[in-house]
Amino acid sequence: MKNITLLGATGSIGLQTLDVIEAHPEHFRLFAISFGENVEKALPIIEKFKPEWIVAKDNHVKQKLKTRLTGDYKIITGVEALEEISIHPKTDVLVNAVMGSVGLKATLSAIEHRKQVAIANKETLVTAGHLVMEKAREFSVNLLPIDSEHSAIFQALNGESHDRLKKIILTASGGSFRDKSRDELQYVTVSDALNHPNWSMGAKITVDSATMMNKGLEVIEAHWLFNVAYEKIEVIQHQESIIHSMVEFIDQSVIAQLGTPDMRVPIQYALTYPDRINIPSSKSLDLVSISKLHFKEMDFSRFPCLGYAFDAGKIGGTMPTVLNAANEVAVDLFLKGKIKFLEIERLIESLMNSHQVIAKPDLNTIQSIDSETRIKALNTASEF
Amino acid sequence: MKNITLLGATGSIGLQTLDVIEAHPEHFRLFAISFGENVEKALPIIEKFKPEWIVAKDNHVKQKLKTRLTGDYKIITGVEALEEISIHPKTDVLVNAVMGSVGLKATLSAIEHRKQVAIANKETLVTAGHLVMEKAREFSVNLLPIDSEHSAIFQALNGESHDRLKKIILTASGGSFRDKSRDELQYVTVSDALNHPNWSMGAKITVDSATMMNKGLEVIEAHWLFNVAYEKIEVIQHQESIIHSMVEFIDQSVIAQLGTPDMRVPIQYALTYPDRINIPSSKSLDLVSISKLHFKEMDFSRFPCLGYAFDAGKIGGTMPTVLNAANEVAVDLFLKGKIKFLEIERLIESLMNSHQVIAKPDLNTIQSIDSETRIKALNTASEF
Repeated sequence: MKNITLLGATGSIGLQTLDVIEAHPEHFRLFAISFGENVEKALPIIEKFKPEWIVAKDNHVKQKLKTRLTGDYKIITGVEALEEISIHPKTDVLVNAVMGSVGLKATLSAIEHRKQVAIANKETLVTAGHLVMEKAREFSVNLLPIDSEHSAIFQALNGESHDRLKKIILTASGGSFRDKSRDELQYVTVSDALNHPNWSMGAKITVDSATMMNKGLEVIEAHWLFNVAYEKIEVIQHQESIIHSMVEFIDQSVIAQLGTPDMRVPIQYALTYPDRINIPSSKSLDLVSISKLHFKEMDFSRFPCLGYAFDAGKIGGTMPTVLNAANEVAVDLFLKGKIKFLEIERLIESLMNSHQVIAKPDLNTIQSIDSETRIKALNTASEF
Repeated sequence: MKNITLLGATGSIGLQTLDVIEAHPEHFRLFAISFGENVEKALPIIEKFKPEWIVAKDNHVKQKLKTRLTGDYKIITGVEALEEISIHPKTDVLVNAVMGSVGLKATLSAIEHRKQVAIANKETLVTAGHLVMEKAREFSVNLLPIDSEHSAIFQALNGESHDRLKKIILTASGGSFRDKSRDELQYVTVSDALNHPNWSMGAKITVDSATMMNKGLEVIEAHWLFNVAYEKIEVIQHQESIIHSMVEFIDQSVIAQLGTPDMRVPIQYALTYPDRINIPSSKSLDLVSISKLHFKEMDFSRFPCLGYAFDAGKIGGTMPTVLNAANEVAVDLFLKGKIKFLEIERLIESLMNSHQVIAKPDLNTIQSIDSETRIKALNTASEF
């Protein structure tokens, strides 16, 4: 029986993690959760799973929750509280699925306490990959990726020697707008963007998928997680999202992980690793009914955000933090109807261009560049 | 440096194994070879690689070779000689690529001497899988498959626990006649059959590929090699031969091995396992130019030999020996123009129908059923 601590329980990955936990009461117990402000979503989770600890965003949310909750729960608040439940002696596996950069400290602390850490929080590796991986090596902790692409690579590398790796091939569905021209992109709406063809995900990541920034962030994550140079990371378009990613070895052998697009599969694998267990609710892959798999070259002029991410990764230092923070603000403004779809990339490019890179930033530097970029992004966007 | 003993050096797999050895003089040395009657093909191999030991089919071939050869070679003859070089103290890896059932004893002896055994000899496992695998378990020897499909499964299982395996999915190109109807098959010629769309292989296996018997034999091999029930083995048609085979685990995750169709990749892997080395002459997989992969249900009424193989495997005992011997005779008769293409399956079916199965046969029983079947097959065919 593994005690799971789940940061970001009310988000899309959080809810799918709960599905996995619920399906296997003999294997998993929800020990602690964190959520932001969404008391309505948190309440049924708490009532169903009865976690010992609950972290709410602030005292206001905590009070709101308390008035609605019966039963004895330890409710704490704030970013420090995320660390507290992450390193709690009873926590066996930390699933970090909070959005944005608030999850970083919890991940670092959990590694120091040699917890099994499952990461769905892209920003952790994008902004501070050098710090996280250094710590993971120091404490001999295996970071378990929850993204379907990184889980695929992790599984494909299983039992193989890292220095025999020649190339990582990330697949990209192309997102909601893969069939639209650059001209047509000028007029797309928020609801168009949220209509992803293959995956059921949160709003932010669905927009990131349409801009291809999602794949760009995954490239940076893959660089850190698998210790691979950017020159050895390739992205190809594969509209069916059936091959979740691939690894090519020096003997030209390619190992791929495939499956129906269902996030619960990589989530469960991160919880059961190195073992596997049944997943009754998920569908077996049926290649015969799918009948065809398609592959296409990625068009970097069609998806400039992918190129920005490769650039930011190669430049390194604080540049990925700027890329990520600018993107978070830009997507948020787009979702609120304040900027147009193509202004997302314009905003990111502009902030990257004006940034003075600091090499090997520590946590404080990353956090101050992050805040600074967010303010600058809002100012820049207001001039659009 | 590994000393390689290669049985069946002048065949298609043999020659490709020599390519691999030649490309890596720092890793491999050809220690011994066997060949049948083809002195013309054997001579340049011997002159180039200078193996210490040479096994020829009989004294007649040996004399023919001696008159053409300069230099000091140990030349021996017969089936026992195959065993002698296979278990020689200097042999590190035995590559068994002889055709037919003559390779069986050599494989068993090599296992007893804990050699690394790479098997391209299908009959070894098809006719005596129970004996071979029992011995492999007894002496803790890993049998390394050279077939692209089994190599794919072997690689996909790397690092995974066998009891988490749900299904093996073998892919089949469909062979030379995949686009022909049953009616059209009545009139196909030997040269039509030898025109395989994807793989460069010997004549017998190319015909087996057209009848789908090749895949049937692979099903039986997979059953033994990976200790998997026939109910858990699926065959799907995949015309591009890019996904070489797949494994599905209980968590619905599918691991596949992919690559350009090039036998040197699985051959080299069997020689370098568990490591991998460069393969400069082979082409990197380019899914973007391939652009589409196709999958189709296998049609058992179109390819009855596949069904016969599943039947023979499930019945077990001496039935797979009958299947294999009848098929060898039938293909030989077809290649010699003595029977028609569709008479191959007719002959096999007829011999299976009249066979009284002996359970758990020993080596002598297998060999006598094998000889008996060949004689019966010739008689039956003469009545067609």
